Amino acid sequence: MAKVRILSASDIEKLFTLDMAVKAVENAYRQKSTGEGSVWPMVFHEFVHGEADLDIKSGDLKCENIFGLKVVSWYGSNEKHGLPDLFGTSLLFDRETGEPKALLNAGPVTGLRTGAAGAIGARVFARQNSEKLLMVGCGAQSPYLIAATLFAMPSIRQVMLCNPRNPAKAEEKLACLSAKVESLLHGCGAERAYTLEAATDLEAAVKNSDIILTATPSYEPMIHTEWVQPGTHFSCIGSDMTCKQEIDSDILGRALVFGDDENQCLSVGECEKPYQQGVIAGLKAEIGDVITGKAEGRQKETDITVFDSTGIALQDLSSAAVILAEAEKKNIGTIAEL
Amino acid sequence: MAKVRILSASDIEKLFTLDMAVKAVENAYRQKSTGEGSVWPMVFHEFVHGEADLDIKSGDLKCENIFGLKVVSWYGSNEKHGLPDLFGTSLLFDRETGEPKALLNAGPVTGLRTGAAGAIGARVFARQNSEKLLMVGCGAQSPYLIAATLFAMPSIRQVMLCNPRNPAKAEEKLACLSAKVESLLHGCGAERAYTLEAATDLEAAVKNSDIILTATPSYEPMIHTEWVQPGTHFSCIGSDMTCKQEIDSDILGRALVFGDDENQCLSVGECEKPYQQGVIAGLKAEIGDVITGKAEGRQKETDITVFDSTGIALQDLSSAAVILAEAEKKNIGTIAEL
Repeated sequence: MAKVRILSASDIEKLFTLDMAVKAVENAYRQKSTGEGSVWPMVFHEFVHGEADLDIKSGDLKCENIFGLKVVSWYGSNEKHGLPDLFGTSLLFDRETGEPKALLNAGPVTGLRTGAAGAIGARVFARQNSEKLLMVGCGAQSPYLIAATLFAMPSIRQVMLCNPRNPAKAEEKLACLSAKVESLLHGCGAERAYTLEAATDLEAAVKNSDIILTATPSYEPMIHTEWVQPGTHFSCIGSDMTCKQEIDSDILGRALVFGDDENQCLSVGECEKPYQQGVIAGLKAEIGDVITGKAEGRQKETDITVFDSTGIALQDLSSAAVILAEAEKKNIGTIAEL
Repeated sequence: MAKVRILSASDIEKLFTLDMAVKAVENAYRQKSTGEGSVWPMVFHEFVHGEADLDIKSGDLKCENIFGLKVVSWYGSNEKHGLPDLFGTSLLFDRETGEPKALLNAGPVTGLRTGAAGAIGARVFARQNSEKLLMVGCGAQSPYLIAATLFAMPSIRQVMLCNPRNPAKAEEKLACLSAKVESLLHGCGAERAYTLEAATDLEAAVKNSDIILTATPSYEPMIHTEWVQPGTHFSCIGSDMTCKQEIDSDILGRALVFGDDENQCLSVGECEKPYQQGVIAGLKAEIGDVITGKAEGRQKETDITVFDSTGIALQDLSSAAVILAEAEKKNIGTIAEL
């Protein structure tokens, strides 16, 4: 009779911190590169086109001795019934025996693990002395990206927030976002000295940035190649399905382009359009191969680098594994007989 | 915050009875035929060839307002560590909202739902006045098949148990198997008057049967076409992966051949070899289409009929759905916040 640990959203909010997320996501990239992690075919089902769908992503991580899956469903009309439109549920198993181990509400994992991805992209590819960070987009993902990047790159002194489609919104959201960033840093005992302000002029902000994070739902490039200074790093997060694009294809043409998973980047990521247009022939390397030293990253101070983060199942699995280990240590969650 | 019901193996043993299994499996076949149930692509991963693997089967059932998945892992060496070699875990969701609803230990579901499949095959295709049932194979599945068929076909008066590879085993297992059959019938309030005895001569038993159920791990046909009398029905359960075969290809050549899922029957079921040999060109129909009246079943008393039961994800999903409904009614299981 197996015993399964059930971890609710509030359990996970207590357990999962920025530093854990950064470590977990880096580990996922590393095990993808070494082959110790594998991703299995995704199941996708659309109940009603554009209204309700789901996917099941699964895989395993050898070092954590775990395999598992995450079901994410999206129901556009849930809001009408007072329900969240997204549900994420993860199920974990012991990789040595097949025994079920844990059921997790994956909702609160997404923000941190996605923030961590953008931040690791910056740590691996940006200039090490980078001081100026520009966050493009001020949606739910932005505080996680800012906090994780501040955590991963202590050299950052200045953060700008820009929302191109509605510039006033960045100013409106500033106080709330700032509090969330501080709480995330505080949650892992990190203190950073930086300024955070809204930027209304995207062109000026881009010209004045070392690192640019993009997390918008854009289908048209917002950042143009003339604005981009040598040495700039981009972590592009927003393009997670076909036809989305956040930055000019020509920027990728000038840049060293990296990503989390080559196939996914070229088919649904920021690389999709530049690849179709023949501006790039593929990735220079996957980030995991740069982390493990199989491939080179940035070569000189003036290189422009792009990290296309499309999101891979191993990020969730690795995050779930560290959450479960922490929950076992602190004895948090509900234990149920199965 | 979703609330999830956790149903353990012992909860399910209390909840799930033969009559529920027969109803659930028939319902799965019906919804496959009407298109109200859909099966999504299976994920299969082999950790070590012939030593450890898993599959993830998923799908939805409109009438039950449910979607879900079942993970089955098999670790051949688990026995050494005092663990079961198979773990089955099901996760169910609300099909209207995507909300997670229940986590079930699917282990105790398998016996009943597989027994129910063989029994429904008999009820749909065998002669309605069938009195003599032969069970070939005396493994874990046999009491479920016998009990479900006695339940579904009250005309049966005589049950024979034959184990071709080791005929003495049928005699040895008889008492234990008989007790299990009685307990399964008793569990749903059914009483049947029948005899149950071991048969050592397979040929004689086949010649003397109206209905034959096969559930063995055989890779070579055990039942030969010369033995088979007009009017006989076969429900073949054992062939669940490529290269398995329980009855002569020529029997299928003489018979009206039905199955649960045409693609699966022709690729991994009892139909695989006869199909490859050109003895049959395909199924006459899927059982669901016969149940819904879209296709014809048996046409005359002298027809030989074969039902190839390979097992489909909707059987598990439909079973899990009725178990969950019963658990909610009786308030059985552990409720956890997710």
